[in-house]
Order: sequence, then C-alpha cells, then structure tokens
Amino acid sequence: MSEYTITYIKNEKPKEKPKSDQLSFGKYFTDHMFIQDYNADKGWHNPRIVPYQPLVLDPAAIVFHYGQTVFEGLKAYRTKRDKIQLFRPDKNMERLNRSNDRLCIPRIDEEYAIDAIKHLVHIDQDWVPDAPGTSLYIRPFIISTEPYLGVAPSATYQFIVILSPVGAYYEEGINPVKIAVENQFVRAVKGGTGEAKTAGNYASSLKAQEQVADEGYAQVLWLDGVEKKYIEEVGSMNVFFKINGEVVTPALNGSILEGVTRNSVIQLLEYWEIPVVERKISMEELYEHYQNGELEEAFGSGTAAVISPVGELAWEGKKMEINNGKTGEIAKRLYDTLTGIQYGSEKDPFNWTVKVKY
Amino acid sequence: MSEYTITYIKNEKPKEKPKSDQLSFGKYFTDHMFIQDYNADKGWHNPRIVPYQPLVLDPAAIVFHYGQTVFEGLKAYRTKRDKIQLFRPDKNMERLNRSNDRLCIPRIDEEYAIDAIKHLVHIDQDWVPDAPGTSLYIRPFIISTEPYLGVAPSATYQFIVILSPVGAYYEEGINPVKIAVENQFVRAVKGGTGEAKTAGNYASSLKAQEQVADEGYAQVLWLDGVEKKYIEEVGSMNVFFKINGEVVTPALNGSILEGVTRNSVIQLLEYWEIPVVERKISMEELYEHYQNGELEEAFGSGTAAVISPVGELAWEGKKMEINNGKTGEIAKRLYDTLTGIQYGSEKDPFNWTVKVKY
Repeated sequence: MSEYTITYIKNEKPKEKPKSDQLSFGKYFTDHMFIQDYNADKGWHNPRIVPYQPLVLDPAAIVFHYGQTVFEGLKAYRTKRDKIQLFRPDKNMERLNRSNDRLCIPRIDEEYAIDAIKHLVHIDQDWVPDAPGTSLYIRPFIISTEPYLGVAPSATYQFIVILSPVGAYYEEGINPVKIAVENQFVRAVKGGTGEAKTAGNYASSLKAQEQVADEGYAQVLWLDGVEKKYIEEVGSMNVFFKINGEVVTPALNGSILEGVTRNSVIQLLEYWEIPVVERKISMEELYEHYQNGELEEAFGSGTAAVISPVGELAWEGKKMEINNGKTGEIAKRLYDTLTGIQYGSEKDPFNWTVKVKY
Repeated sequence: MSEYTITYIKNEKPKEKPKSDQLSFGKYFTDHMFIQDYNADKGWHNPRIVPYQPLVLDPAAIVFHYGQTVFEGLKAYRTKRDKIQLFRPDKNMERLNRSNDRLCIPRIDEEYAIDAIKHLVHIDQDWVPDAPGTSLYIRPFIISTEPYLGVAPSATYQFIVILSPVGAYYEEGINPVKIAVENQFVRAVKGGTGEAKTAGNYASSLKAQEQVADEGYAQVLWLDGVEKKYIEEVGSMNVFFKINGEVVTPALNGSILEGVTRNSVIQLLEYWEIPVVERKISMEELYEHYQNGELEEAFGSGTAAVISPVGELAWEGKKMEINNGKTGEIAKRLYDTLTGIQYGSEKDPFNWTVKVKY
C-alpha cells in the first residue's frame, strides 16, 4: 500500500446533527477527522480518516509548552443545486506551508492535502448545512508531538483536519460593527510571527479583545508594533478603507497575515476597475480623511465573516462614525459577490471554487 | 473531602531510572504527575497525583489552535546531606499568575501550588539525581482544554506538573558560549507577550535559533522589536554585562521576561556591594565599551544553566571576544554561589531554598 493511500475507518456511531439555528461557530464537530504523522525517517506518513476522537499526547509534547503549531481555516459550501464546493483551498495550503517555514515545521504536500480535505468533506458531506449563510468550516492544523522540554523544533508532528458546521455569521443580513483602536497591546511585529497563522498570535490577542468587549466594541483595530501608528488588521481580519473613491488596505509588511479573502477582494476590485491600493496607512491619516468627509467605507475581510463593515471606529477618545453606521456600497457588493461565488449562485470568473461533490 | 485534598493514585509500574550520564535535558520523565482541572462553576478543583500518562484532549481544544497556555520552570536539588530542596518556588508561582493575567487564564492559588509541587517531588524523590550538577527539573504548565474554534479564552483548563531528571548543564565545568546578535527575527515587543512565560514566545524563537546554529553559534542575543537597537535577552536567558566594574542588565520593559535567576543575581551583587544597574543598553553602546576595553564580562542567567558566560558576540560582521573567551570572575562567583545555595553547600542568606525532604 502506498504511503499516500488514505486508510478509512468508518465511524459506526454517527452523532446527531445540530439544527441550523443552533450552529453558531466552531462548537460542533463532524463524525470523522483526517490525521497524518511525521517523523524524520518516514516523512509525512500513515494518512487516515478515522472517527472524530480525542488526541492522546505525552504531557511533555512540545505543542503544550512552546506552541510549535500552525493552522488554516476555510469552508465548504452547499450550493442551491446541492453541490458542495471549497473556496480557494490552494491559497490556504500555500499559506500553511509559509507558516510551516516560519515555525520550523516540515512542509506538507499541498495538492495531497487538498485531496485529503476533499476526501474528508466528501465522507462527512451530510454535515454540510443547507440553510442560507451556513457552511462547513474546515480546520487543518499541525501540532508538534515530541515529548521534549528543550526549546527546539519537534522531531515528530501530526497534521490533522477537523470539520465544524457553522451558522450564518450575520443572522439578519450583513451588519456593521463597532471597533476600538488598540493602543496598549500589540498583535505582532516585523520579525515576529504575524504573517504566519500560528497559535501565539491569537493567544496574544485575547487580552485586548477582552478589554474592548467590556466597553461594547466587537473587535480591536491593531496598529503596528513598532510605531503604534500604522493600521495592520482588525480583530482576526484584514482591513480595507474606501477613501475618496479609492480602496486602501495596509501593505503586507511581515506582521500582517496574508488573507485569502483579502487577496480575493483586491482581485475583485481590480476586475471591477475600482481603484485599490496596498500601502501604509496611519491612524492620523485616516482621521484626517474622516474629518474631511473623505472616509466613505471601512470593512474587514476574512473567512468567517467574509466582509465585516465597520460602522464606528473609536480612537483616542474620538468616535468616528463611518457611512452613518451603515454598510457601504462596496462592502455590500463584495459580500454579495464573494458569497455568491462561494454558494454557486454567481459565476466564478477566477475559477476560485473547487468541487467536492458534483 | 475538601476540594483541596490531593487524590493520590500510585504508579504500580515504576519505570527504570536513567543513569546520571544519560540524562541531558528534558528527555526523561518521572513516575507521577500532578493534575488539577478548572471550570467556571467549580474553579480549580480535583487536584490529583497520578501515574505519568498521556493527556487525552479533544482535537478542537483551544491550546492546539490559539496557544492559550503558560508554563514555569524550576528545579529540585539533592544536597550532600541527602535533603531535597527547591529554589525560590514562590517567585515562579508569582510569575505564573502574571502570565495567567496576560493570557486570560484564571489565577492559581500560589501557596497551594507550591504545596502540590512539594508533594509530587516528595513522592518521586528517588528520581532526584545525586551526581554533581544534576537536578530534577519541574515543569508546571496550564493548558486551555475547551473544544471551541472561536478566538476567545477557554472555559476549561488543566494545571499540570511534570518532573524530569536533568544532567549537569556543564559537563566539564562552567564554559563560555558563542552568541550571535539577531538582526532579522524578533522574540517579543512591548504590548506583546514577552514578559509572560507563554508558548508563542518560544515558537517564535525557533527559526532564529536554527539559523545561527548552522553558523556555529549557541544562541542568539535578542534586540528590542521596536528599534532593533536595545539588548533584551540571550536565547531564553536574561543577560548581564560587566562594564568598567559595573554590572548592567536590560531594565524590564514589558517584553523582557522577569527571570528568577536574574532577580537572584541582582540581589547577590547588591549583597556583595558590586555596582549593578538595570537600564536600557544598545548594541552600539556595548560595542563602544568593547572597543575601549571596558567590556569585562558578559553572561546569561536562567534556571537551566544558572549562569552562562558569553565568550564571543557576533554583531553585524564584527566579532567581539569577551574576557579572552574565558569565564569572568563575577560570572564564576555568581555560578558558584547560586549553585552552592541550590545544593546546600553554601549558606542561604536570603532564605531562598525550600525543603521538600528534611
């Protein structure tokens, strides 16, 4: 048997599926998972799809102590014609390997990983919900499993994929959120791990998020870690501003995550011939545009929400209401088009979707 | 039974203990471990000492994805009179709680945790090695266990303590190492998690360490993440320089870990009436002192090595040989005194040691 043949052990005790209106995000998991092991001798080996089950790890496993781990997030969508499709999984696997490089984790075979994901989703296809806005969230991740307390890359790893049916992000249609600019905490800095999708970036963000939630804000807007001047991300999304008819997003600088939705937004805007530019942008500049009435829209982009309009931005005691707190025209058009492509109701000029079930 | 009574399940199949010369660091683990659970209803509860065993965790547990975890490191030493003692465990538990605050993890009861550690070490006392320079490394850590893919603090945790007999750090006596100043990667930045003992800081350091190891250096010297000018730490140790008779160490600034050994070094120097100052110090300044013949010693401080002299520092193509590549007088005196106190051969004027076995 080839090292590449996926062993399949069927779950003989499938769980009851939650109803669409119970789903929310990341709380339910399907009947199966994908696992593959790594060691220096065999490389990535023993790929298998098995019943969803606990991981059994030595308490000294490196992941618990030194956080050598990376992950990805993408979704499978059920179309109106009952097909199931993924959105740009190649971009996620490319990024997973970039994250692997930064974290000293051995690279995976990207095409093989996409096949494994398709295989797994196909097996658990009944878990892909069909209510509007719902989807199956796919979480590939790699953990370091060697039991060793020295600070060094692990000798062994597991690549795992789990699936979680998730509810509509917006229950009553796309809706703007209130955001606070974070002045105390920093998510990432150039030379750190900000452009990798790794655990530590998210651990670092919890405290900031907790503080602003107490003040009624949904997320924080992260500034750069060096000067605390330039805008980087919003919550765990990339961020865009429409200023005087031009869409501006922070240029990738080593501490900003290269979002798949970010990339898709830029491509769509170019396709529509709407001016879009990647550059440094400071809060001072943004505020000046706001005062001059030139800040027309602000929105985040990410896999979970797709597009998340910002209705209010709080910064150093000032409150900036954007587009009267309403969803802007560009944000709406991007949201409708992206979700339309994802759910197969709009044509897909870039061939972004990948069929799992025909 | 009180929530505070530790349940004890004896390991009926004890392992064979490794020989002193096989030990190295963090590769062997003892027969028992301590575990305690947390949830919102019960707080920290169900403390137990059980046979060393794998952790069984849902693959969606937050620790695997968002790195919400903290840890500590301290040691138990066997004295010549066959007593067993800890070194300043109160400082470690204080820091664990500071790390908990930063990572949104519920605080532990510090005194209770010290008692639990003493209890565990007492049970596994035969694992405390007696060869010169050997000790029992103690690794308390907390992991987030809730199966949830939203980026939010976990609802459940486990506080775990494992023990690992470790060899002498210096097989042939204290010995200087070669260090490279890191110009590309950053360990931590103000507003990040640098002053917390949490996984992400260590994950971030692996790549830099891997690169310099290829060039024959033992560790990197970390500069600040903002200006990449000021000295922060060396490897996973704090750092000290003797300049013109005065000992200088970088002042705590939010991105430097507050080391227990660092604190002990400062107290000892003050006790000896050797000038010691905590302040910002740049590589430019250090290099100027080096050129003027004023840089007399450099050394790291940490639990693993206690004191680690720096014999050579490579910075922007320049190689600075310090004290002719030999261990300096202050480094030697600190090493001898600290290890003397730890192993009970020197008197302990600060009451730093805590007896486990009388």
